[in-house]
Amino acid sequence: MATAKEISYPPEDPPKTHDFASDDEPRHIEFAHTQSPHDHSQHDHSLPITEIPTASSTNTNGTAHVSHKSSSTLRRTRSALGLHPEAPLDEDHDHHERQTLWWSRVRIALREPFAEFWGVVIMILFGDGSVAQVLLSTGQATAPGGNGFGAYQSISWGWGLGVMLGVYVAGDSGAYLNPAITFCSCLFRQLPWRRFPVYFIAQVLGAFVGSGIVYANYISAIDFAEGHGIRTVPPAPNATAGIFCTYPQAFLTKSSQFFSEFIASAILMFVIFALKDPSNNGVGKSDKWFPLCLFFLIFGLGACFGWETGYAINLARDFGPRLMSYAVGYGSEVWSAGGYYFWIPMVAPFLGCAFGGFLYDLFIFTGPSPVNTPWMGFKHIFSPAYARRARRERHRKAKEEGMV
Amino acid sequence: MATAKEISYPPEDPPKTHDFASDDEPRHIEFAHTQSPHDHSQHDHSLPITEIPTASSTNTNGTAHVSHKSSSTLRRTRSALGLHPEAPLDEDHDHHERQTLWWSRVRIALREPFAEFWGVVIMILFGDGSVAQVLLSTGQATAPGGNGFGAYQSISWGWGLGVMLGVYVAGDSGAYLNPAITFCSCLFRQLPWRRFPVYFIAQVLGAFVGSGIVYANYISAIDFAEGHGIRTVPPAPNATAGIFCTYPQAFLTKSSQFFSEFIASAILMFVIFALKDPSNNGVGKSDKWFPLCLFFLIFGLGACFGWETGYAINLARDFGPRLMSYAVGYGSEVWSAGGYYFWIPMVAPFLGCAFGGFLYDLFIFTGPSPVNTPWMGFKHIFSPAYARRARRERHRKAKEEGMV
Amino acid sequence: MATAKEISYPPEDPPKTHDFASDDEPRHIEFAHTQSPHDHSQHDHSLPITEIPTASSTNTNGTAHVSHKSSSTLRRTRSALGLHPEAPLDEDHDHHERQTLWWSRVRIALREPFAEFWGVVIMILFGDGSVAQVLLSTGQATAPGGNGFGAYQSISWGWGLGVMLGVYVAGDSGAYLNPAITFCSCLFRQLPWRRFPVYFIAQVLGAFVGSGIVYANYISAIDFAEGHGIRTVPPAPNATAGIFCTYPQAFLTKSSQFFSEFIASAILMFVIFALKDPSNNGVGKSDKWFPLCLFFLIFGLGACFGWETGYAINLARDFGPRLMSYAVGYGSEVWSAGGYYFWIPMVAPFLGCAFGGFLYDLFIFTGPSPVNTPWMGFKHIFSPAYARRARRERHRKAKEEGMV
Amino acid sequence: MATAKEISYPPEDPPKTHDFASDDEPRHIEFAHTQSPHDHSQHDHSLPITEIPTASSTNTNGTAHVSHKSSSTLRRTRSALGLHPEAPLDEDHDHHERQTLWWSRVRIALREPFAEFWGVVIMILFGDGSVAQVLLSTGQATAPGGNGFGAYQSISWGWGLGVMLGVYVAGDSGAYLNPAITFCSCLFRQLPWRRFPVYFIAQVLGAFVGSGIVYANYISAIDFAEGHGIRTVPPAPNATAGIFCTYPQAFLTKSSQFFSEFIASAILMFVIFALKDPSNNGVGKSDKWFPLCLFFLIFGLGACFGWETGYAINLARDFGPRLMSYAVGYGSEVWSAGGYYFWIPMVAPFLGCAFGGFLYDLFIFTGPSPVNTPWMGFKHIFSPAYARRARRERHRKAKEEGMV
Repeated sequence: MATAKEISYPPEDPPKTHDFASDDEPRHIEFAHTQSPHDHSQHDHSLPITEIPTASSTNTNGTAHVSHKSSSTLRRTRSALGLHPEAPLDEDHDHHERQTLWWSRVRIALREPFAEFWGVVIMILFGDGSVAQVLLSTGQATAPGGNGFGAYQSISWGWGLGVMLGVYVAGDSGAYLNPAITFCSCLFRQLPWRRFPVYFIAQVLGAFVGSGIVYANYISAIDFAEGHGIRTVPPAPNATAGIFCTYPQAFLTKSSQFFSEFIASAILMFVIFALKDPSNNGVGKSDKWFPLCLFFLIFGLGACFGWETGYAINLARDFGPRLMSYAVGYGSEVWSAGGYYFWIPMVAPFLGCAFGGFLYDLFIFTGPSPVNTPWMGFKHIFSPAYARRARRERHRKAKEEGMV
Repeated sequence: MATAKEISYPPEDPPKTHDFASDDEPRHIEFAHTQSPHDHSQHDHSLPITEIPTASSTNTNGTAHVSHKSSSTLRRTRSALGLHPEAPLDEDHDHHERQTLWWSRVRIALREPFAEFWGVVIMILFGDGSVAQVLLSTGQATAPGGNGFGAYQSISWGWGLGVMLGVYVAGDSGAYLNPAITFCSCLFRQLPWRRFPVYFIAQVLGAFVGSGIVYANYISAIDFAEGHGIRTVPPAPNATAGIFCTYPQAFLTKSSQFFSEFIASAILMFVIFALKDPSNNGVGKSDKWFPLCLFFLIFGLGACFGWETGYAINLARDFGPRLMSYAVGYGSEVWSAGGYYFWIPMVAPFLGCAFGGFLYDLFIFTGPSPVNTPWMGFKHIFSPAYARRARRERHRKAKEEGMV
Repeated sequence: MATAKEISYPPEDPPKTHDFASDDEPRHIEFAHTQSPHDHSQHDHSLPITEIPTASSTNTNGTAHVSHKSSSTLRRTRSALGLHPEAPLDEDHDHHERQTLWWSRVRIALREPFAEFWGVVIMILFGDGSVAQVLLSTGQATAPGGNGFGAYQSISWGWGLGVMLGVYVAGDSGAYLNPAITFCSCLFRQLPWRRFPVYFIAQVLGAFVGSGIVYANYISAIDFAEGHGIRTVPPAPNATAGIFCTYPQAFLTKSSQFFSEFIASAILMFVIFALKDPSNNGVGKSDKWFPLCLFFLIFGLGACFGWETGYAINLARDFGPRLMSYAVGYGSEVWSAGGYYFWIPMVAPFLGCAFGGFLYDLFIFTGPSPVNTPWMGFKHIFSPAYARRARRERHRKAKEEGMV
Repeated sequence: MATAKEISYPPEDPPKTHDFASDDEPRHIEFAHTQSPHDHSQHDHSLPITEIPTASSTNTNGTAHVSHKSSSTLRRTRSALGLHPEAPLDEDHDHHERQTLWWSRVRIALREPFAEFWGVVIMILFGDGSVAQVLLSTGQATAPGGNGFGAYQSISWGWGLGVMLGVYVAGDSGAYLNPAITFCSCLFRQLPWRRFPVYFIAQVLGAFVGSGIVYANYISAIDFAEGHGIRTVPPAPNATAGIFCTYPQAFLTKSSQFFSEFIASAILMFVIFALKDPSNNGVGKSDKWFPLCLFFLIFGLGACFGWETGYAINLARDFGPRLMSYAVGYGSEVWSAGGYYFWIPMVAPFLGCAFGGFLYDLFIFTGPSPVNTPWMGFKHIFSPAYARRARRERHRKAKEEGMV
C-alpha cells in the first residue's frame, strides 16, 4: 500500500502493525534506497509551508522542521498505550505545522485505535444493517419484487462488503477489525503483545457504537415489528435481537455450537495468512487484491458456514453489539439465550483462528513463525529455559528498534 | 488515471476537479520531471497534423501550435461558468486542429458539465431502470424462474453498477454525480465554491433526462400495470412513481425519515473520503480500484440502508426524477406524499455528507482540511477576522494559479 | 495487453483490430523505443529452435528466420478476407518453425475470425445456458433451496460473465462479439470497413454453434419439459424457444419493442466507448479492467433493461440461435412470434449503437472521430465532394500502411 | 506472481509447475538480468541470520550458506515423488537456518502436494459447505427473509469463491485443484507426467478431508433433517448425500449425463487455457486477474451447466467426498445411485478437458503444444517411430535441466 517514501518508520523496523493491510514489497525498495538507517532522519525538511496561517504556530518557531510524530511527548504517550512510538503517518503530512494543533496531536497519538474503531464501525453498520433490513422487511408485499427488501444473501453481501470497506478505512492500523486476528498476529507474526489491549478496546468500542447507530436508524421499524418498546430475543417470534448479535439454531448441541464457530474461525485465519503471505506464489505482491479477496472470504463464510451460529468469528462483532442490545433493553436473555451461548463467540474465534494459523504455518508458511522453530514451536511451552531465552532475545531486539 | 504527461493543467495547480476520479500519485511524477512550472507551456508542438483536412482550418494558419483550450475566449467562458480556465483535456488531442471546430470548442468549454451530465444519466438509467423492471414485473409467472424479472437485490445491483459506470463515463469532471459530494469537496477538499453551481445544474439536468428515458422505455409497461394514462404515487396499490424517486415507508416518523437519509449520506461521504485519501495506507495509490469500491459501497447502502427511505442520498438523483414524474403526469402527490417528504432527500444528504466528511477529517485525515486548522475549523465560524484572513489568502492563491 | 515487443504490427500501424480488447498505452512505449519504423523488421532472429523436429521443416531451410505471418501467401489470403495483412501474433511464436505447418498457417490466416467465433461460442454457452437452466428447472422442489436451480438474476450473471470470458478468449480479434459494435468501430473508430464481413460471419456462426451445443446439452430436459419431440415458442405455455433467442413481452407495441432494443444498444455503445477512451480520465490506461467492467455493464443491462425484449442488443446473439432453433424444429413461429419481431434485434442494435456512439463522440470524445470533423461529421453525408476527398485520403493512408 | 529474484529454479527451467498460478512475464525479466545460468548459484549468501537460536543449528556450522532445498537428500526425495528436484520456495526463506529443522525439510519435500491438498480442502469446505447450508435450511421460516439461509445461487457463489480462494492458497503448486487439469497440463503444456500421481493423491485426499470437515460441522443439522443416524441418497426425500458429491437429475439418460459433464469440462479447460495463454491479447500479463476470472468461470458453470449433473467436472471433488460419505454411513447407494452414475464424474472430466484443451490449441494457441506438431499432434499416436523420437528428445531435455 504505502510506497516506501511515505511512511516514516525507521527502516530497521518492519511495519508490524500493517501486517494485514499492506504488502511487504515496497519495504524492499526502501531498504535498497536507504544507505544507513540513521540518515533517514536527515531528509529534506525544506517543504514550503504556505497553508492558512494558524494561531498556534508560535510554538513551532524554532522547531518548524521537527517531525511532529517523533516528538518525545507523543512517543511516550504512544508507548504507554502499547503502540509503536512513531505513528504510521504520511511523511509530508507529518512535517506540516498543522500537526502541532492540540487535536492533531491527539489524532497522531491515537492513530491506530481511531482507525481500528472506525473500521469496525463501518463493518458493523453494513453487517448489522443488512440483517436489520432483511429481517424487519421479511415478506413485505409492497416491496419491488413483492417479497421484502432483500433475502438471506443480502446478509452475506452486507458483512462481506462491510469488512472490505472497513479494511479500506482502517488501513493505518493494519485493519485487523477482529481481536482474534490481532491475537494470531501477535502469536504467529511478531506483532508485539503490548499492541493487543488498545486494539482490543478500540474494536469492541467500535462494534458497540456501530450497532448503536444501526439501532437508532431502525428504531421505528423495530417498534413497528415488535410493538412499541417491546424487545425480544430469539427464539421468540418477531424477535429482533438477532439483528445485532448472533443466536444459534435451536437443534445445535453445545459442542456443535462451538465447533461451528471454531471451524469458521480456522478457515478465516488460514485463508488470511495465505493472502498475506508474500512468499506464496498464488498471491500478487504489488497489487491491491486483499480487500476484495476478503469480501469473497467473508461472503463465503456467510453463504457456507453462516446458518448454525451466524458466523460471529469475532469477539468484537458479537460482544459489542450484545452489550449494546442489553443496554437498550433487550433484557438478560441476550446472555442466557441458547444455553448461555454468548461465551462461545467470545472464546471459539481465538482458539479457531489460532488453530487455522497453526495449520497454515505448519504446512505452507516458510517465513519466520514460532511453528518454524524447534519442536514446531512447542519448545516455547515445554522448555521454560528456551522460552525465556527467546523472550529475552525478542525484547532486546524491540529495544534496539525503539519499539518500547 | 491520467499519466502526468497527458493532462495539461499547469503543474502548480493540483487537479482539484479530479478529486474523486483520479489518484494524486501521477502528479508527483510530474513535479519530479518538470524543472520549472513555466517551461511547461513550451513543450514540443511539432505534432504531425495528418488528419482529414478540415474546412475551418484557415483560422489556425498562423497559430497551428497554440493550445486550443487555453485560447483566451475559452478561458474567459469557462471562468464565467465557474470552471477552471483550462479544461481537463488530453494534451495531444488539445493541439489537434479539430479542436478549432465550433462544436469542439463548445465541448471544451462545457467539458465538466457534459461529463457530469452524462455520468448522472448513466447512473439514473441503470438505477431507475432496475427499479422499473423489478417493480413492474413483480410476480410475473412466465418469467424464467417463475417469479418476475429480478428481486429487490437487482436494485442494489442497478444503483451500484450505475454509479460505477457513471464514474467511468464522467472521469473528466471528477465524477461527483451528487451535489452533496461536490458540496463536501468544496467544504473539505479545496474545490473552489464557484465550481458548485454549474456542477449542480448538470447533475440535476442529467437526473431529469435519465429518468425521462427510463419513463419512455417503460411507458407501455406502466400503462399495462396501472391502466392507460393512470399514474399513481405510493402508498396507492399499483403505484409506479417509486420507479423514479424515493418514497418513505409508512411507519416512519419525520425524524426517522431524516435520520435514515442522514446516516446513509454520512456513511457515503466517510467511506469515499477514506477511498480517496492518498495518505491512508488501506488504499492503493496507483491502482484503479475506486469505481469498483464505489460499486460495493452503493450496493451495501442499498442492501443495508435502502428500505426505510430508499437511500436517495443525493438531491439530483431524487429531485430530478421527481420533477420529471411531476411533469409527465403523476400529479402533485409526488410532492405531498409521506407528509411532504420530498424536501428530506434534498436537505439530509448535504447535512449527512458534511457530518460524515467532518468525522473522517476529525479522526483520520492528516492532510489539508479546515478541520485541521485551529478550533477544528470552527474558528472560521466563530472568529470573523480569522475567516476573512483565510478567505483572502485562499483567493490570492487561486489568482496566482490562474484559477479565476 | 500485449507489451510493445510482442506484437509485430509495423509501428506505423496502430492496432486497429484491437480497439476493444487492448489499451493503447503500450503502443506509446513502442513508439518511444523505436528509432525508425524500418528497423523493426531487423530485430534479432537468432532464437534457438530446439523443439521437437518437424517433418515439414524442409521448406524453412533457407528461410528459417522469415516471419511466417508476413509470408506473401498469407498476406494475400488475409487481405482477400478483409483482414490486416499481418496477423496479430506473438512475435516469438511467429518465428518458430511450427508456424510452417499447414494447419498453423490456416490458423494464422483466420486468426481474428477464429478468435471472434470462439469468443461468441463461449458467450452463448454461458448466456443461453443460464436461461436454459433457470427456465427448465423453474419451481423444481427438490433443488437445494426448494425452488429451482437459479432465478432471473442467474441470467444476468450468465450473460455478464459469458461476455467477460468471451472477451478474454477473443483477445486476438479485438473481441467485438457483436456486429453492431464492429459496425460502430468502423463508423467512429477507423476500423476499416473491409474487416466487417468476415467478423460478421464469424460472429453469427459462433452464435449458431454455441446455441446448438446448449440445445444438445439440454435436449433431455427440453423433452422432459415439453414432451418428447414437442418444441414450442412463447407465448405458448411450457415454451422453451426463449432459451435460445429473445421474444418480447405481449403488452409491447412494435415501437416499444424497437425503442427498448434501441436504448439498451445505445447505452451499451456509449459506455463501451467511455471504457475504451484513453483520454477519459475516469478510465485506467494500463490496467486490465475492461472485461470486468463489461461484466457489470451486461449484468446491468440484464437487470435494468432485460425484461421487455430480453436485451438482444446483438444481431449475432439473436439471429444465430434463432436460425438454430428453426433448424432443430421449433417451427416457423420463431420468425412470426411477436408480430414478426425477429427483425427488431437485427436492426435496432445497429441503429442504437450508432446513436450511442454518436452521443459519446458528440459530448465527450476529443480524439479522431467523424463527429469531430466539420458539421459534426454530417458533411460526409451532405457534401459528396468532401466525402470523396476524405475517402481518398483514408484509402491512401491505408495503402501506405500496407493494410490492403 | 513471484518476482524473478525470489524463486530459485535455475533460469533454464521455466516454472512448469506454476502454469496455472503464475504469469510468465517476470521470467523474462529474470532472463534479462541473468548473464549466465551458472552464476545463479553464486549469489550473495551473506544474509544476516539473527533469528531465535535453534537447537539443530549445529549441522549448518560449516555449510550455513548452502541452499537447503537443493540439498541432495531433498532433491532425491522430491525426485522420487515425481516432483521437480528443487522446491518452489522463496529464496530468502530457503537460506534461513530454520529450514534445517526436521519438519521444515518435510515441508519442503512435500511442498506441492501440501499446497494442492490445502487448496482442495478450502475449495471443498466452501463448495460442499454452501450446498449443506442451502439444502439443510431449505424453507426455514425463521431465517431473515423467511425462506431459508440461501438459495441455489449461494451454491454458485460457494464453489466459485472456493476455487478462487483455493487457488490463492495453493499458489506454490500451480493450483490445479483438479486431476483433469493436471492431466491436460501434462498432455498439452509440457508438465512432466511424473508429476501427475503425487498431485492426484493430494487432490483426492484433500477432497476427502475437506468433505469430512463439512460433515462434522453439519452433523447435528443432518441428524435434525433426516433423523438421528439416518443417512439417505437422492432421490430419497430428505436425502442429504447431495451435500458431498453429485447425483444426476432423474430424467437424464446415461449419454446425457456423460455429455453434460463432458461439455462443462471442455468449457472449463478451454477458458482456463485462454486465461493462461500469455500470447492471447485478451489477457493481462502482469496483473493478477486469474483467480477472479476463475471465480466467474466456476460461478458461470454452476449457473449455466449446474443443474443436470451438478457440474462435478473434477474427479477429486466428486470421488473424494463420495468415498467420505460412503465411509460415514450413507451406504452403497452412493455408488449405485443414478444407474451407477459415479463413474461419469471420474471419466468425463478427463475426456472433456482434453477435448476443450485440444480445441483451444487447434484454433487459437500458437505456442508449443503437441497440436502444433505435424498431423495436429496425432503423429504421436499414428507414427510410433516419431513418438519414440519425440519422447527421447523430451527426456534428454528434462535430464539436462535436472528435472529427474
